[in-house]
Amino acid sequence: MKRNFLEKALIFALVGAMAISTVVAFGSTENTIINPSTTNATSAAKSSAPKYIFLFIGDGMSYPQIQAASDYLGAMAQAKNSSILTGGEALSFMNFDVVGSATTFDSTSFCPDSASTATSISTGKKTHSSVINMDESKTKEYTAITEKVRDQLGYKVGIISSVNINHATPAAFYAHQASRNNYYEIALEMVESDFDYFAGGALKQTTGKNNDQTDVYQVAKEAGYNVIKTQSEAEKLTAKDGKSIVIAERLADSDSMTYANDKENSEWGLADYVKKGIEVLDNSTGFFMMVEGGKIDWACHANDAGSTIADTLALDEAVQEAIKFYNQHPNETLILVTGDHETGGLTIGYAGTNYDTYLTNLSNQKISYAKYDSDYVAKYKENKTPFETVLKDIKTNFGLTTASDKTVSADSKLILTDYELKKLKAAYDKTMSGVAVDESNQEEYVLYGTYEPLSVTITHILNNKSGINFSSYSHTGLPVGVFAEGVGEDLFSSYYDNTDIYNKLASLLNLK
Amino acid sequence: MKRNFLEKALIFALVGAMAISTVVAFGSTENTIINPSTTNATSAAKSSAPKYIFLFIGDGMSYPQIQAASDYLGAMAQAKNSSILTGGEALSFMNFDVVGSATTFDSTSFCPDSASTATSISTGKKTHSSVINMDESKTKEYTAITEKVRDQLGYKVGIISSVNINHATPAAFYAHQASRNNYYEIALEMVESDFDYFAGGALKQTTGKNNDQTDVYQVAKEAGYNVIKTQSEAEKLTAKDGKSIVIAERLADSDSMTYANDKENSEWGLADYVKKGIEVLDNSTGFFMMVEGGKIDWACHANDAGSTIADTLALDEAVQEAIKFYNQHPNETLILVTGDHETGGLTIGYAGTNYDTYLTNLSNQKISYAKYDSDYVAKYKENKTPFETVLKDIKTNFGLTTASDKTVSADSKLILTDYELKKLKAAYDKTMSGVAVDESNQEEYVLYGTYEPLSVTITHILNNKSGINFSSYSHTGLPVGVFAEGVGEDLFSSYYDNTDIYNKLASLLNLK
Repeated sequence: MKRNFLEKALIFALVGAMAISTVVAFGSTENTIINPSTTNATSAAKSSAPKYIFLFIGDGMSYPQIQAASDYLGAMAQAKNSSILTGGEALSFMNFDVVGSATTFDSTSFCPDSASTATSISTGKKTHSSVINMDESKTKEYTAITEKVRDQLGYKVGIISSVNINHATPAAFYAHQASRNNYYEIALEMVESDFDYFAGGALKQTTGKNNDQTDVYQVAKEAGYNVIKTQSEAEKLTAKDGKSIVIAERLADSDSMTYANDKENSEWGLADYVKKGIEVLDNSTGFFMMVEGGKIDWACHANDAGSTIADTLALDEAVQEAIKFYNQHPNETLILVTGDHETGGLTIGYAGTNYDTYLTNLSNQKISYAKYDSDYVAKYKENKTPFETVLKDIKTNFGLTTASDKTVSADSKLILTDYELKKLKAAYDKTMSGVAVDESNQEEYVLYGTYEPLSVTITHILNNKSGINFSSYSHTGLPVGVFAEGVGEDLFSSYYDNTDIYNKLASLLNLK
Repeated sequence: MKRNFLEKALIFALVGAMAISTVVAFGSTENTIINPSTTNATSAAKSSAPKYIFLFIGDGMSYPQIQAASDYLGAMAQAKNSSILTGGEALSFMNFDVVGSATTFDSTSFCPDSASTATSISTGKKTHSSVINMDESKTKEYTAITEKVRDQLGYKVGIISSVNINHATPAAFYAHQASRNNYYEIALEMVESDFDYFAGGALKQTTGKNNDQTDVYQVAKEAGYNVIKTQSEAEKLTAKDGKSIVIAERLADSDSMTYANDKENSEWGLADYVKKGIEVLDNSTGFFMMVEGGKIDWACHANDAGSTIADTLALDEAVQEAIKFYNQHPNETLILVTGDHETGGLTIGYAGTNYDTYLTNLSNQKISYAKYDSDYVAKYKENKTPFETVLKDIKTNFGLTTASDKTVSADSKLILTDYELKKLKAAYDKTMSGVAVDESNQEEYVLYGTYEPLSVTITHILNNKSGINFSSYSHTGLPVGVFAEGVGEDLFSSYYDNTDIYNKLASLLNLK
């Protein structure tokens, strides 16, 4: 019952030490034989250290985000077949052998931030919100697991993120800073890490907070990095080219990668950077790849369910690249998929829709809130666009429409009620006023957070009409799932603290 | 990767078939020996069918309810020590070896009901909301796992619930009805089940929908049941007395057991009924005990976080009784703790409190919303009690107070803001008007659901000031945790459907 970690590790080692070679038959009319490779994989999975480790972190992704994405796919499939509901469609990692849970609190709060939680996953230590791999007093540095596998095992290391690659989560895998906002210092540590592959969104503050430092891409080049900023160059990259920093060619909000909702067909998504990463990192000694789906979190902060689901599915696609590799190296690979914390208090269900959901409504959303802000709202303000015109754009981009719209049936779940229309008009007025949300005004802040009132009201209404709700613009205290497949998977099967993700990996890899 | 259930079961059997007898040493300076009983327990846990099965179902209890209860305990502990947060305090079952997740959708919705979800857990079949152990066409009956262990294994069976023992969840372990509302027919099936021990809240509709049937307690007595309605009689009950129906002496809302928040010191809680159940069910062949923490769901429906946490902790206490038994029979016992679905869309975090929580605020709640309704609100309506007087009761029972209150410090998180006071006054006015909530009024329904406007507004405000929020008055689509300890625990480690809870148990027990 109260078996401690060492006891569990020992039991695990004991079980693993026993080779399973027996071939056993079962079934009544026909003997079914276990595929020997499956048996061996199971045996190996329990006896040795993984050579290839994938750690996927969905930022802000806990059970609600995963289940909502799964249920959305199920609802879209059901819309074609109708009648009895047969549930969601499993994302790849929902089929993993082991799924445990991890608590996420940090030294500051039950609603922690990405710096402290990534520190916990990367070093096994708790710290305050905003701190990267340092203790609560901000004086002592902690060593990241990626640094340990580089130094102690000679593994190659790759760090990928759909947001800026010097943002908090990726930073915790190479930097040590009192504040996550020390972007320039973090970027310098990134270069110093000598890791083999960085990819994703652009670096933030490349010339420092005051724009008075050497461009960090230049620093990287001088340190021997290939700095790649076009997709065609990225496509040509091979392992022979040496260590590389690959920045997405088309950048979006805050120089991150585009939301999956806004991605163009030929544009590389997270999965492409993972695929390329495998290509350049693969070697006989081993590698450790950390992949962050960072825009799940950004979408949840903004209470944009459509973009949350699209980016969760993009992370799933990236995981599928790791699964392909796993299938080639089942006895040497471990894939972990987890989140750092939940964001937004997403729920599948809403007071106004009771036991019903209308998830297919979300398929009408063609654009992220952020792109709507930049491509539409900015112009509304400039041109003083009338509400009636805005309503047309809202229909085009989010599907929401009015009772006077004769192109939809009268019982469409996308028709705005008078109450919703009133809320939308108030948000439009607030946005057009150009006056920022008064954060000390409790009612106004709960309505809009620090977002563009019009945009966040559109997604709130579309979410709610779909049977989805968000409770917060910040992170919440829900535990996260830890999905494990491969060598050492059994270690991840219970309810533990996020620091134990590090502890279990370190034990598996015999790290000091 | 895509290992199917049978393959997994076979691998499980293979591993289990190997006896672990080696004693292994580890540690650098001192040899630490695994306690042989632990080793044997692990071996046995993987090789044989459990003789004693506890299935705890927290109705409406998913990760948010469990983690909120844990975090509440952690916050209360931290309030004494201050400074750096060290997290929640684990409920007993959070320390179980295996914690998987189960999806909960039913044939009707992603936000299912307790009848269909309990049917899935009990029979491995999906059905429509409101249906108890019948198929979607309501023509074919499904056999409950409890009926199978009774008939195929000769196990004794006990069914315990803190709500009515003919409510949906317990009903799915002995009845087969097209509607969960057929309370009388369900109660008759309860008597017909011949199960050994029923305990908890009173039966509903004991003389039928139209009060024209033989009292079902009389029917039970004629069938040989002891019908016990006082605590002193319950205390004296022994296994020798034969099959029994034990109803809580002090009944609360809808004749259920009292909320843990309202329980008197000497009054039996869920744990006491479990303890007594173990006493009367224990036998050398085996037993199956289903225990429902039903008022977690009721508290979540009403968006009452304080009562939700208190009843989740009461379920934990009940689980601790099973753990005591497990410790005496580690090689023969399996304990499962799960939920049937999430209720309320509970989140640890709220838009108005950002990254902060103030969970200790909830310790000021001295009463459930239901008892406040019956003991206070009813009198307010009768006596036309003025708002100022009501505010005094609110302070006494929920801690919320006003800026003019000189007994609390000016920065107290319990002082109502002007905005909150305005909402409270509007709810008071609505309650005092005696006019029911207009369910077709979207704004009003989202504010109050079908609850007493004053009471639900009090808990909403207290929740939010504590950094907690609810999104719905109904069930939501979040998966539930499945916490497993004991014989066969490893089967429960992944992400599966709730029908697989039955499938895994049936496989473990070789049920047909």
